[in-house]
Amino acid sequence: MTRRVAVVAGGHAKFGKRYDATMRELCAEAYKPIYDEGITQDKIDASVLSYAASQFTGQGAGSALIADYLGLADKPHLRVESACTTGTASLRAAWGMVASGLYDVMLVLGVEQMNRVSSARATELMAQAGDMRWEYPFGISFPAFYALMASRYMHEYNLPHEVLSMIAVKSHHYGAQNPKAHLPREVSLEEANNAVPICRPLNLYDCSLITDGAAAVVIAAEDRVKEFTDEPMWIKGIGAGASEMMIQDRSSLTSIPGAKRAAKAAYKMAGLEPKDIDMAEVHDCFTIAELIAYEDLGFAEPGKGREIVENKENYHDGRIPVNVDGGLKSKGHPLGATGVSMTYEILNQMRGTAQNPSRQIDDVQYGLAHNVGQSGQFVNIFIFERGW
Amino acid sequence: MTRRVAVVAGGHAKFGKRYDATMRELCAEAYKPIYDEGITQDKIDASVLSYAASQFTGQGAGSALIADYLGLADKPHLRVESACTTGTASLRAAWGMVASGLYDVMLVLGVEQMNRVSSARATELMAQAGDMRWEYPFGISFPAFYALMASRYMHEYNLPHEVLSMIAVKSHHYGAQNPKAHLPREVSLEEANNAVPICRPLNLYDCSLITDGAAAVVIAAEDRVKEFTDEPMWIKGIGAGASEMMIQDRSSLTSIPGAKRAAKAAYKMAGLEPKDIDMAEVHDCFTIAELIAYEDLGFAEPGKGREIVENKENYHDGRIPVNVDGGLKSKGHPLGATGVSMTYEILNQMRGTAQNPSRQIDDVQYGLAHNVGQSGQFVNIFIFERGW
Repeated sequence: MTRRVAVVAGGHAKFGKRYDATMRELCAEAYKPIYDEGITQDKIDASVLSYAASQFTGQGAGSALIADYLGLADKPHLRVESACTTGTASLRAAWGMVASGLYDVMLVLGVEQMNRVSSARATELMAQAGDMRWEYPFGISFPAFYALMASRYMHEYNLPHEVLSMIAVKSHHYGAQNPKAHLPREVSLEEANNAVPICRPLNLYDCSLITDGAAAVVIAAEDRVKEFTDEPMWIKGIGAGASEMMIQDRSSLTSIPGAKRAAKAAYKMAGLEPKDIDMAEVHDCFTIAELIAYEDLGFAEPGKGREIVENKENYHDGRIPVNVDGGLKSKGHPLGATGVSMTYEILNQMRGTAQNPSRQIDDVQYGLAHNVGQSGQFVNIFIFERGW
Repeated sequence: MTRRVAVVAGGHAKFGKRYDATMRELCAEAYKPIYDEGITQDKIDASVLSYAASQFTGQGAGSALIADYLGLADKPHLRVESACTTGTASLRAAWGMVASGLYDVMLVLGVEQMNRVSSARATELMAQAGDMRWEYPFGISFPAFYALMASRYMHEYNLPHEVLSMIAVKSHHYGAQNPKAHLPREVSLEEANNAVPICRPLNLYDCSLITDGAAAVVIAAEDRVKEFTDEPMWIKGIGAGASEMMIQDRSSLTSIPGAKRAAKAAYKMAGLEPKDIDMAEVHDCFTIAELIAYEDLGFAEPGKGREIVENKENYHDGRIPVNVDGGLKSKGHPLGATGVSMTYEILNQMRGTAQNPSRQIDDVQYGLAHNVGQSGQFVNIFIFERGW
């Protein structure tokens, strides 16, 4: 029997264009609230300190730098990289090292500093996660991958663009209430639906942000949890999946095969079904991705995700609240931090510390984080359980 | 109780300047012998597919690309990055995921394709693993970090450079007998000692190679091992350590603090002492690093490592054979592949399949891999046990 593992604390830097902070300083900002709760460096056995791409800052092998700056240079550390799932891949690797008994207490921290280059250059660097021989040279970037999916979805299910815009409106509604959000302001449906095109059919408000930020959690083995908190969040289910490298190799563009596999594995490990989930953090790198996530996670039948949107079931008081922290769209998407930020948000929702009563979900027993990399080549899904 | 985990198979690409192969093709070359032994894709639950630096090829998030090319795109994968310890950090993360029960069978593959850029540019890119704000801008690169250590060691212990050259002679003696080696030729002591300076006191033959290559192993949980082999190599001890980011913050330059911590942890987990080890693969990125490793691993007292060299105790028929595959010096050092290549070599030595009788060590029961990143900021040490 493997040991149970819980998330016992979390911290979160302000997301945004953080010209005021270096990468290491963003990490310290995420770790500080954890330190202030008493989880000082001496209590941490090892750490996973991750970011998705060295190219934004030029810094290679940065976990050594971060460990040093956080006062953890005498403890083992490593970096995990899995594109936009770097945060949850880090949590998965750390979970294994704790569940297996190698370490008892680990810090898992994700960071990305994307705005040291221009937005255009950042988009180009992200495109280099596509195949550098068979995709990137032909000019395809991530808005284009998701525009292909959106086009196909809109064609197959006769979906009007307005439904996608409604997702953006919801994200901004909640981001406006999240003090950590990059773009904390409301947008109207009209504004969202008529914004400047980025890659048709996706417009400005269909796309997530290029954000600097960091988030951190501490995980502990079951026999150590009580030292840190009376409100642990247990890691109940883990599912990981992957998909074909090139989307033209996939049999469908209206779902992500790796996400369906990951969801199946996570639900199985947790012994739960979609209907048991009280809230979800999903990877809305583009609005279409959030719609597809509803279906891949089993919250809606294929082609029926729009009902969740149109009925506002995804709001904080709805059937399945999704991204009521603003999501990647309004809170922002610092690649390596995103999966850890999702975990942090679920911890806070369970604890009733979501900062703002108008986005606090009642009585969260089970929360799900759905984190997708590239155009579905990486997927990690975590199911968390309230432990008190 | 955590499950025991064994290495059950290995594969190794030819190391060298591999202009003939893309990164994904190097990976396939390393996986092919494993596939040919019958460990086909359907038997693998998940994989860790790693390289140290995206900058050499420009390819980001490459585990998706590699997984796809190897026919593993429908299974979870991730990349671990820990500078030159990327290979063993991958093994450590994978061990956790298998020991904990998340997966039963995992492929661990390390690769690096360094020669798509010039040697000078490769050296510069590696220097970006130094602190990009406080080290790299001042021009220090890895030969310089190790030259500082060598200078201090030579000063404190009155070491003549010739002892370092004797290590290079030994590495090339064995590399010449290894068909996978990058530079498989003997060098004389005179040639090694009088070579062109790179960064004084280190000369050309004190420095490891800029190499393209890949290596792979499969690990399996104890209850699954028999499906794959009658000659499993158990993972008996794992120790990881880290050191201060900047070497001026260290109290000594004649040892690597993280390596001593990692060795202590690995020996403790294995229940073994240095004298129990029958062979070692150590991280000789520079000859001085091999000498320091003897001491950090407890094979010699501080300042006495030279006795191992002068008495040829590090030869295949000596007291503690070290790097009888040629090491990073002659076999080569494709960063992400190195730690996996060490593991592969120990597996072959245990099995008596070291390709050449004049470098086959008799009766290896315990083998140790010592893998160091940057100038000691990352260290992983594995102790393996013959399981038959």
